[in-house]
Amino acid sequence: MTFGERLRAALDDRGPLCVGIDPHTGLLRNWGLPTDAAGVREFGLRVVEAAAGRVAVVKPQVAFFERYGSAGFAALEEVLAAARAAGLLVIGDAKRGDIGSTADAYAAAWLSAGSPLEVDALTVSPYLGVGALGGTAELARANGKGLFVLAATSNPEGVDVQAAERSGRSVAAAIVEQVRSLTEPAPAAGALASNGVVVGATIDLAAVGLTRESLVGLPVLAPGFGHQGASLGDLDQLFGPASASVLASVSRSVLGAGPQGVAAAIDEARAELGARA
Amino acid sequence: MTFGERLRAALDDRGPLCVGIDPHTGLLRNWGLPTDAAGVREFGLRVVEAAAGRVAVVKPQVAFFERYGSAGFAALEEVLAAARAAGLLVIGDAKRGDIGSTADAYAAAWLSAGSPLEVDALTVSPYLGVGALGGTAELARANGKGLFVLAATSNPEGVDVQAAERSGRSVAAAIVEQVRSLTEPAPAAGALASNGVVVGATIDLAAVGLTRESLVGLPVLAPGFGHQGASLGDLDQLFGPASASVLASVSRSVLGAGPQGVAAAIDEARAELGARA
Repeated sequence: MTFGERLRAALDDRGPLCVGIDPHTGLLRNWGLPTDAAGVREFGLRVVEAAAGRVAVVKPQVAFFERYGSAGFAALEEVLAAARAAGLLVIGDAKRGDIGSTADAYAAAWLSAGSPLEVDALTVSPYLGVGALGGTAELARANGKGLFVLAATSNPEGVDVQAAERSGRSVAAAIVEQVRSLTEPAPAAGALASNGVVVGATIDLAAVGLTRESLVGLPVLAPGFGHQGASLGDLDQLFGPASASVLASVSRSVLGAGPQGVAAAIDEARAELGARA
Repeated sequence: MTFGERLRAALDDRGPLCVGIDPHTGLLRNWGLPTDAAGVREFGLRVVEAAAGRVAVVKPQVAFFERYGSAGFAALEEVLAAARAAGLLVIGDAKRGDIGSTADAYAAAWLSAGSPLEVDALTVSPYLGVGALGGTAELARANGKGLFVLAATSNPEGVDVQAAERSGRSVAAAIVEQVRSLTEPAPAAGALASNGVVVGATIDLAAVGLTRESLVGLPVLAPGFGHQGASLGDLDQLFGPASASVLASVSRSVLGAGPQGVAAAIDEARAELGARA
């Protein structure tokens, strides 16, 4: 089964909510947890518990584990294993990107079966060109995994790169187009590709040369909901014809509810999404 | 002491060679080492031994350690500690890049004093805008560390993003200009900044809208020597007025000499660089 097929089934079954696992220092303190590897482990396992059965996808933010070196990665490995055992799809939010054998090594770390850091999909950065991601996409495909390539990010400084143009097309638009050819064979009509893009929910698509139509059929990981300003109830208006394959990613707005409140906060976010129909 | 000052002193003392620590699968096999965390540890420690006293800088490629998860990071921690204990400056080649508290977590992981992954400088990716790197640069400065921001990479697919233009300036050129303002206070005339750029030695600078003059006074990490095609003897011609602050990075061409030959291969590369005067 391809990642696109698994993601489609998960979205149909549980809806578009993606819960971030972002144990930054402030949240660890709010949760009464130590700011160390044991703290991020405990935080991650509790979020997995709260998310299991409630949502399709969780998205651990790798930086908050990397912060504590090898001990932090050991904690991340436990959290990833727990999430996959609980039937959650896991997107590793690592934004890796390199060329040649180095890119292959990142792909092997995150996207090969049996690797200690195995996830279902990985966020990757295209500064070195989407063309440099070919080997990564090939390894992903061979293992039934997917990629989310940064296209238009939710921060204001992103336009410096993402809105720049070449041959009359913005960088973000070129990336969206090139990402389509990373999925081979191309998915059947109406089916979801296995490689998608990251597009912030709060951004003005036109300002980076994107249209909602250009995103149709691609998995779209959309940060920017909740704490960053976009409302979950507006998902369909924001993404229009592409909204059926958007993953609405929330982190601080549910995690801020604390260890006792996070499950209820997730249910509330789901209700907000459910009410839009 | 700032990173720029430390780098200047090291370059003056030992010359511009930077030795990569790239334990990819093929090299591990050539070296007779296992393709696991113990193998990358042994490989890294032996390269550090060979580089110590011979060169100014080593550059571990993080992907090849990450490949083995937390065990690989534990190996990397030992290699980093050994390199710094041997008086080498260490550039963590991780190409990290994110926004807000996530970017801060990457900065804390690599650039804060006492962190298990502490290095002297980190390679970072600017797809989210150089503006998003402000917090990272601030933490680097507070700890006497530096950044190398990807500008123009040595792979052919990089131009898709790096040669795109905005307000009449290429993405690569804008990045080089913006990186200058990351170093605060600005270095004295003739002194080296603490934040520099990555510019491949094999690329046509004009094709990405760059000039050699625009790089003067910035540390320039230049991959592409040796295996990838540029000759060390041509460093001055390639970088002209900027060549005094270029780090010529070699990996496969010296590492391919094997555990018994790597020290001699490093000496040979140094001789090639020395002969250019």
